[in-house]
Amino acid sequence: MSPDYQSVLEAIQNEVVPLRRTGAVANYIPELAKVNPDKFGMHLQTIDGQGFSVGDSGESFSIQSISKVFALAMVVSCVGEKIFDRVGVEPSGSSFNSLVQLEYEKGIPRNPLINAGAMVVCDVLIEQLQKPKKEILDFIRILANNKKICYNENVAASENKFGFRNAALANFLKSFGNIHNNVNDVLDLYFHICSIEMSCKDLAAAFLLFANHGKVISADKALLTKSQTKRLNAVMQTCGFYDEAGEFSFTVGLPGKSGVGGGIVALHPHRYAVATWGPRLNARGNSVMGMRALELLTTKLGTSIF
Amino acid sequence: MSPDYQSVLEAIQNEVVPLRRTGAVANYIPELAKVNPDKFGMHLQTIDGQGFSVGDSGESFSIQSISKVFALAMVVSCVGEKIFDRVGVEPSGSSFNSLVQLEYEKGIPRNPLINAGAMVVCDVLIEQLQKPKKEILDFIRILANNKKICYNENVAASENKFGFRNAALANFLKSFGNIHNNVNDVLDLYFHICSIEMSCKDLAAAFLLFANHGKVISADKALLTKSQTKRLNAVMQTCGFYDEAGEFSFTVGLPGKSGVGGGIVALHPHRYAVATWGPRLNARGNSVMGMRALELLTTKLGTSIF
Amino acid sequence: MSPDYQSVLEAIQNEVVPLRRTGAVANYIPELAKVNPDKFGMHLQTIDGQGFSVGDSGESFSIQSISKVFALAMVVSCVGEKIFDRVGVEPSGSSFNSLVQLEYEKGIPRNPLINAGAMVVCDVLIEQLQKPKKEILDFIRILANNKKICYNENVAASENKFGFRNAALANFLKSFGNIHNNVNDVLDLYFHICSIEMSCKDLAAAFLLFANHGKVISADKALLTKSQTKRLNAVMQTCGFYDEAGEFSFTVGLPGKSGVGGGIVALHPHRYAVATWGPRLNARGNSVMGMRALELLTTKLGTSIF
Amino acid sequence: MSPDYQSVLEAIQNEVVPLRRTGAVANYIPELAKVNPDKFGMHLQTIDGQGFSVGDSGESFSIQSISKVFALAMVVSCVGEKIFDRVGVEPSGSSFNSLVQLEYEKGIPRNPLINAGAMVVCDVLIEQLQKPKKEILDFIRILANNKKICYNENVAASENKFGFRNAALANFLKSFGNIHNNVNDVLDLYFHICSIEMSCKDLAAAFLLFANHGKVISADKALLTKSQTKRLNAVMQTCGFYDEAGEFSFTVGLPGKSGVGGGIVALHPHRYAVATWGPRLNARGNSVMGMRALELLTTKLGTSIF
Repeated sequence: MSPDYQSVLEAIQNEVVPLRRTGAVANYIPELAKVNPDKFGMHLQTIDGQGFSVGDSGESFSIQSISKVFALAMVVSCVGEKIFDRVGVEPSGSSFNSLVQLEYEKGIPRNPLINAGAMVVCDVLIEQLQKPKKEILDFIRILANNKKICYNENVAASENKFGFRNAALANFLKSFGNIHNNVNDVLDLYFHICSIEMSCKDLAAAFLLFANHGKVISADKALLTKSQTKRLNAVMQTCGFYDEAGEFSFTVGLPGKSGVGGGIVALHPHRYAVATWGPRLNARGNSVMGMRALELLTTKLGTSIF
Repeated sequence: MSPDYQSVLEAIQNEVVPLRRTGAVANYIPELAKVNPDKFGMHLQTIDGQGFSVGDSGESFSIQSISKVFALAMVVSCVGEKIFDRVGVEPSGSSFNSLVQLEYEKGIPRNPLINAGAMVVCDVLIEQLQKPKKEILDFIRILANNKKICYNENVAASENKFGFRNAALANFLKSFGNIHNNVNDVLDLYFHICSIEMSCKDLAAAFLLFANHGKVISADKALLTKSQTKRLNAVMQTCGFYDEAGEFSFTVGLPGKSGVGGGIVALHPHRYAVATWGPRLNARGNSVMGMRALELLTTKLGTSIF
Repeated sequence: MSPDYQSVLEAIQNEVVPLRRTGAVANYIPELAKVNPDKFGMHLQTIDGQGFSVGDSGESFSIQSISKVFALAMVVSCVGEKIFDRVGVEPSGSSFNSLVQLEYEKGIPRNPLINAGAMVVCDVLIEQLQKPKKEILDFIRILANNKKICYNENVAASENKFGFRNAALANFLKSFGNIHNNVNDVLDLYFHICSIEMSCKDLAAAFLLFANHGKVISADKALLTKSQTKRLNAVMQTCGFYDEAGEFSFTVGLPGKSGVGGGIVALHPHRYAVATWGPRLNARGNSVMGMRALELLTTKLGTSIF
Repeated sequence: MSPDYQSVLEAIQNEVVPLRRTGAVANYIPELAKVNPDKFGMHLQTIDGQGFSVGDSGESFSIQSISKVFALAMVVSCVGEKIFDRVGVEPSGSSFNSLVQLEYEKGIPRNPLINAGAMVVCDVLIEQLQKPKKEILDFIRILANNKKICYNENVAASENKFGFRNAALANFLKSFGNIHNNVNDVLDLYFHICSIEMSCKDLAAAFLLFANHGKVISADKALLTKSQTKRLNAVMQTCGFYDEAGEFSFTVGLPGKSGVGGGIVALHPHRYAVATWGPRLNARGNSVMGMRALELLTTKLGTSIF
């Protein structure tokens, strides 16, 4: 018998509400700081098609680094595991935008879920796709079964104007020969995919791909092989939360990915995908309410992948 | 219906035999270099009590770092999660005996499965136990249901004589105040638990604890809570293979732990524990045959935790 | 009685000729690789106005990082020691273009003679000067008493096209708030001053400023105070040769500065300035013939500052 | 005409007295914390035999790291520059007891004036000398022309009891093969030479060796060649003040060495040696009063080596 997910989500919502004022909204780009910091939403979607929601689960927000998982899935569906010649699969042990490791390791990013790794992924997508921005957006729209998902051009422009650290990373990668295209083109694509806006509902729907061994449920179509899906889940498990990846594995026990827009998506293979949103972040850049909500979820359900 | 594990193990044995000459036996201590480098064994034990074996699965070898998991389980059963005040749960992103991170992070080891972390665990065990060496051995004997498991005093003495890097780590931890007992006492315990000898059969039997939500099957006794077990599995998943933790998650997809004696143990929660032994190591210190055997196992069975 | 400098220079030339084929010309930008690698020149200029030359001492070459000393002298003459709020005076212990230290030290470059430090100096010069490029060139022309000294626009353009590592550094500094102007403007000025071409004669003449307690001999004008001059010499001594600063102090014993164009300038306070040129570099980016020639100089003269 | 050194020293004393309460006495070993923190002494000794003193210049204190210069001078007098096969001459850019660089650079310390480098020097001295402790003490007694100079056994024992970081360094060096003798023997010698007690008068007298091109004035005997002396001065200049070496060059402009006992010795080649003592240290471990006193000295005399 399936658990009563709706009751569980409601209980979680009650428990995380007191955290609503804890942490700080990302403000390194002005556009992100405009969000209402008190929002909270959560949506769980099972692989047999049921959806459960609480709070602001239908409201769109900036997915930021969660987009790295979509870009990775797309590049793997295009070129397979060849991508891992240019980017590793090891946890970085450092913050998401560190240049230190990149210098010691000669321009090969530790994994595709830190900024430098996602830039290499973008570089390959530029080579592989005719119209990268359009095709990536289409890919995500199909996964989420929602044609209204869009880039936020203001956020992308804001990143472009203030994203000096990312410009440093992209130029650094280029200096090691691990960016093949023009640096500005890569940054433009990277900033755009980070600016995509989706709701918890959209994200949970889209991440069912990874819970459903690579098949899009709505389209009944395999985008990834079983083996590829398993591997992407493993990468999310070990690398999806910057220098808090161990902590998330430890307390939540599911593969997932967070973004500085306050979103977190996780999945239980063969069961469900779940997305949370709470704009205030902890010191390591992960949503305070989201981290707690997902810890409560696996505790209350009594199941994790471990 | 349960898979035909015996056939799978035999097929794996055939495929890994050609790797028998690849890699090099650990030689940083003379005692370890004495092993026959061509050995290979594998044993899989299910939670419903069945065992399957190929090769030298009954032969004992030096478990080395695999012992860190036993020490961690024991300390958690003694003091609970308080241990994580003194050692983290994040992957280190560096090699198992690096001092660099320890300096930057003021003496708090990244996780309990690198050398520095295991020394802190040993330090706590010395405080908690009356006769640490005896009690730890008893604990492992119960887990493996084998009273013949022993320390190898020659290996422990060899480590003590040549283990300057470990002595550096222990003194460094002490300088940060994260070792409370005498440095030599901590090193002595640490070197002893590394010297324990077990067979693949013993290891698979003992690791059933982690596949069986913390209960010892033979004794029908809970040593760890469900939540503790889940968390230890998560730590193994993200930290069990030094700087190859991501690679192991990626290709194998199970929580586990390796040792420089050539052993690897992994487990599929609620299903089985599996141990392999092949003394030749890859550049990162993990058994060449073992890594390949476990990759083949989850591929052939078509299941991993992801 | 003054030493017979001319004989000393000729003896040195004879000894360094056999090194003519040792080392490799800088080729990270195509324009620099076009130089004739077998050139050698040396010029020594005393503070009482005598000049001594051997080899290609009148031929102009790309001064590259030697320009950092001129930029530093100019910024100190403009804003005094306030510049040291934004850049340190400590040796870096790492290579000239490392980003690692900059990350750990939050965007404050170790000293003004590594790339990052020189970029901060350029940033201040852009704020202080009406026409930075013109005024810096005029400053150097006055020091060297040679109006023909010029930028090489091809070299500057080549740096701009291929200088991704420098672009990474400048963006990284900007991300820490230690570049106030537009990143591209700072890089443009930085690449231009590196592209300046001077001969050994020009360089020795210009560096007399530092041997002559801050007074330009030809113009009889104080550009720097005695104290400022002493301090710039100290910075050259500890930081002028990247990660070979200690070696240069050890074997030569004079303050100086090298460039990847193969030039080295050094000075003995109150006595002379001396410049060498040999395009082939050792592994640390310093001229093979130049390093040897200057070691021979202080050995043969029997005097260094130590 | 020689400057009026006595008046200069008295003026300096007046200016540094107000700093008497600034900074903190070294307390990492209990014995050092027992000193009266308000002491100040200064002694300048010229190569033509004159001595000038103010304050507590005749009182002995723990020379600590200043002893590294004596050990280095002695090893160079024994084995010449062969010592530099096992230790570098580059500034470290990090603190005196960092293990980070040692790990990256495979056990070759950056220079002989950081702890790790001095331990390698001690290791060589153990091999070279019959009775290392006695002979080193004799060497220093001859340099200072004072037979009463002694080890402080309490300080050495205190270091031995609490010096875990140094024990970590020594074991780490041993693990790289850059300690040949027993680790404890090397540490014992190292702790002993650090425990030597000398006054400002003793230190200035002893350092005349380096101002006097390697000749002991009292004994009219050459212990070092001119070239060796020049090189040791260069090493002091670039490496004598941990991560404040650049600052000391910049503000004082003389080669020298500091110790956490609050002593600093510096020298002007061919002119004088000067020692200061003030137990309170700045954040980088150098005497607050001493740094200021020496800056005032070269400012008031209007001369430095630059």
